[in-house]
Amino acid sequence: MLSDIEISRQHTCQPISQIASELGINPDELSLHGANKAKVSLAVTNRLANNKNAKLVIVTAVTPTPFGEGKTVTTIGLTQALNHNGHKTCACIRQPSMGPVFGTKGGAAGGGYAQVVPMEELNLHLTGDIHAVSSAHNLAAAALDARLFHETRLGAAAFTEQSGLAALNIDADNILWRRVVDHNERSLRQIKVGYGSFNGPIHGSGFDITAASELMAILALSRDLQDLRSRIGRLVLALNHQGEPITAEDLGVAGAMTVIMADAIEPTLMQTLSGDPCLIHAGPFANIAHGNSSIIADSIAAKLADFVVTEAGFGSDMGFEKFSNIKVRESGYTPSAAVVVVTLKALKANSGIESEQDINQPDSERLTAGFANLEWHINNVSQYGVPVVVAINRFPTDTDAELEWLIERIGQTKAFGCEISEAFAKGAEGAAKLADMVYRATEVGSEFKLLYQTADSLESKLMTLAEVGYGAASVSLSDKAKSQLAWLNEHNYGNLPICVAKTPMSISHDPDIKGIPTGFDLPITELRLNAGAGFVTALVGQVMTMPGLGLTPGYLNIDINDNGEIVGLA
Amino acid sequence: MLSDIEISRQHTCQPISQIASELGINPDELSLHGANKAKVSLAVTNRLANNKNAKLVIVTAVTPTPFGEGKTVTTIGLTQALNHNGHKTCACIRQPSMGPVFGTKGGAAGGGYAQVVPMEELNLHLTGDIHAVSSAHNLAAAALDARLFHETRLGAAAFTEQSGLAALNIDADNILWRRVVDHNERSLRQIKVGYGSFNGPIHGSGFDITAASELMAILALSRDLQDLRSRIGRLVLALNHQGEPITAEDLGVAGAMTVIMADAIEPTLMQTLSGDPCLIHAGPFANIAHGNSSIIADSIAAKLADFVVTEAGFGSDMGFEKFSNIKVRESGYTPSAAVVVVTLKALKANSGIESEQDINQPDSERLTAGFANLEWHINNVSQYGVPVVVAINRFPTDTDAELEWLIERIGQTKAFGCEISEAFAKGAEGAAKLADMVYRATEVGSEFKLLYQTADSLESKLMTLAEVGYGAASVSLSDKAKSQLAWLNEHNYGNLPICVAKTPMSISHDPDIKGIPTGFDLPITELRLNAGAGFVTALVGQVMTMPGLGLTPGYLNIDINDNGEIVGLA
Repeated sequence: MLSDIEISRQHTCQPISQIASELGINPDELSLHGANKAKVSLAVTNRLANNKNAKLVIVTAVTPTPFGEGKTVTTIGLTQALNHNGHKTCACIRQPSMGPVFGTKGGAAGGGYAQVVPMEELNLHLTGDIHAVSSAHNLAAAALDARLFHETRLGAAAFTEQSGLAALNIDADNILWRRVVDHNERSLRQIKVGYGSFNGPIHGSGFDITAASELMAILALSRDLQDLRSRIGRLVLALNHQGEPITAEDLGVAGAMTVIMADAIEPTLMQTLSGDPCLIHAGPFANIAHGNSSIIADSIAAKLADFVVTEAGFGSDMGFEKFSNIKVRESGYTPSAAVVVVTLKALKANSGIESEQDINQPDSERLTAGFANLEWHINNVSQYGVPVVVAINRFPTDTDAELEWLIERIGQTKAFGCEISEAFAKGAEGAAKLADMVYRATEVGSEFKLLYQTADSLESKLMTLAEVGYGAASVSLSDKAKSQLAWLNEHNYGNLPICVAKTPMSISHDPDIKGIPTGFDLPITELRLNAGAGFVTALVGQVMTMPGLGLTPGYLNIDINDNGEIVGLA
Repeated sequence: MLSDIEISRQHTCQPISQIASELGINPDELSLHGANKAKVSLAVTNRLANNKNAKLVIVTAVTPTPFGEGKTVTTIGLTQALNHNGHKTCACIRQPSMGPVFGTKGGAAGGGYAQVVPMEELNLHLTGDIHAVSSAHNLAAAALDARLFHETRLGAAAFTEQSGLAALNIDADNILWRRVVDHNERSLRQIKVGYGSFNGPIHGSGFDITAASELMAILALSRDLQDLRSRIGRLVLALNHQGEPITAEDLGVAGAMTVIMADAIEPTLMQTLSGDPCLIHAGPFANIAHGNSSIIADSIAAKLADFVVTEAGFGSDMGFEKFSNIKVRESGYTPSAAVVVVTLKALKANSGIESEQDINQPDSERLTAGFANLEWHINNVSQYGVPVVVAINRFPTDTDAELEWLIERIGQTKAFGCEISEAFAKGAEGAAKLADMVYRATEVGSEFKLLYQTADSLESKLMTLAEVGYGAASVSLSDKAKSQLAWLNEHNYGNLPICVAKTPMSISHDPDIKGIPTGFDLPITELRLNAGAGFVTALVGQVMTMPGLGLTPGYLNIDINDNGEIVGLA
């Protein structure tokens, strides 16, 4: 089979203006960025406000493994197949980060014959939204440090006299706003800034990957430009020497940050290999942020199509939980069905059984043990009142016997049904049966419900997430988290929803506990306020907000050839 | 008079596809980015290879002052007026950096009725080229530090065994590649990276503004994508423990960096307020890099128009010298005329005479003394064999008496002629006489000559630049510069041209010496190899490669209004 980029390059895309026109976007609502990408105006939702919303399908997965489960392949394949089956469908996915593209994971356009094309345009700059987030984020960091510098060198009184601005009295040891870059930059995780004769004071800082920026979460959760502006104003950047929050509004930088992100508010339209529309927008990671693409993209697609297919990062304990309790709570746009993606390999890897045997070979012991993980995710999604369809993403090495066993076992669960998907190898036709099953699931009617109410106390919300969300027996807070909890309650931030930052590699906080962890205590190490995004982030165990490059990173293979074409992008 | 952004917003732009069509660009050579911007393919120059090159006009200025001389206003106004006078003309300018936009300088689109529009699209992301430069630059930094990390933790032998790659033995104390961000970030000038338990080794680093990146210079000097690829491969990122250079090719990251910059190779077409074409591309600063927009943009414009107007940063000792000895040397595209921009205010400020009097008031003593600075720049440009036209950029407070005195004095110099320009207040018509004078100057015929030959030794080239370029009596090298000189000669880099990094605020290295400095010694503090850009940078005195935000930065005024429009961008 050809590589992803070969398939993408050999394909002749339709003009993106034609894709837009077929979807029902007016020419004056479209801003072309080359032949294959276009920004879509939020004016669409106003024009079509009276249209009924499309049925929303959310794609999630079992606990992820290093082998890749094919969630984006399934999201794109399902979109291709729903259109193939005669249902007008639009996919909504997140923009890929360049960190993984040049690191180890490679691109994030789907793969095989279920791809967004041209894949190199999706995987690299797209229409510049991630760059805009980085730039706005780092302007706030520069502004904060410049203010600290001037107030420190002049003293508060002289600063106010010379600048006409009130002194903020920033506590250099309580700067909450870090910096961002869209690369895997281990050496910038913890840095010290302000060295030199006139650049200080020296203090700690560090860089996160841009997908971890609170601005990325804000972009994904905002309803429009004015909402974006308000949220940016509420960002808490630092504490002053009295322990009170200093916001982007206080610093006077919220307007300029919004201006930098003004174009980023519009989703980007691209197409699948079958010419189906795909809106790409935002990209907060699901382990450290809320892990879902934007409310704006979904709301535009909802007015234009009959079905919207979107995906949530990592397993259902991660992205899907946040999709429900953060994104849907904010948007009110509830899903009609959920798809849980699974592979035979993923079940074996989730079995918790050590084995020397090639994971591509039949292994009923590991398969049976790993099945529990799938059942947990089916039950987890079901408790939100949404019908569950299991998509078995087939690999060439899969045996019919193991697939048949799996289908039979899924039949004994709460799942509405399951189908094998061969979207990777066969595109739309490979997912036609899955699309039919998903369609039937959306006809059943869902009764979506949230896990908790925002009016509940932060302690109660944490307990609910731990026990009902992950199956923990108890929750414990570090001393730091306890004092942060008190501060949050004092400052009236107790009514925000919770965004849990934890490893995605286990339902628990410990990546080594596979299958269905039970009876464990969930250790909350830190509670971080994200007043702009509108949630409190609970850090569980050790969570990394900046990846690193491995021994043989993906960039080693990437180059241009003699024709100036990109090669080696996986 | 309306503000720049008000003038820009009230203006109805022509579709950029129409501007392109009138210029002679085929639809398949154009990639739209919204309604007002389009990338132009390098295919134009191949298709029109047999066309005669347009006549090239280079706009420079007297020694700059804090008041602004209006070089971009004159460049754009002259372009508008040449077209107005019936000469098919295209402007070529650099992309503005967001640092000054949110710092103090404001935008860089020209001003008044001589602007590139929409000015906010030019001043913010444009089509993402600066973001691409930042991203490619910082990928190299991440790759270098990741390699250092893995080689350090494993040791060379185990590293090679596990990765299959030869160890580079990077000397952490000799990392030459810093990082970049397109903001004024004082606190990142000198930092230490690699803190934390598993992120090291700890070592020094720092950020420059993106315009100071060697990649920005490379973008401006490359002929095409393959040339870009070769130059990136030659970048020297660090030395190994034996003092030998480690290149981007050695690190295996040159291909991926090129891929990130692949779209940036195409200039962006915009329009002036009169609907004249303007190509925007690259933006190396003129104090720390070579200070000119791209060879590619000039070469495309040269095939499409009869006149190309471009500008060089700061005074003629800075950008124009580098335009000549670096850019024209590389491109072979010689100027037919040069314009030196001057204002009454600039001459008074360059007089070196301290005065309490308002600089807008008549002051014959300061004007007479400051005139010497203009005459120096006329002579400086003349020695390159190019006819010089002086453009007096008129301000509302200028008196007729002082303007008449100035015109008469210019008549006694080597200048071909001079005219008052009122492009700011009146657009094309305000610069019509200037355009006529420039046209006549280009009819004279120039005999362009370079100041030195690359085959000359580095010492000899430095001496020529100091004595002939700035009027210094002598040159002295610091001990550091001496040992760097020896290293460069040893490693066969002696045949590169020189790019001087010095203050632009004086012809000498001392910003406090105004007028015509003479008899001074030029102190070279450092010699830096820029093997990719293809020059050796000589640092003279203290040069800053990262600006800082002032007490009341421009961002304080910038916001969106209730209609979602940008306000406060100057």
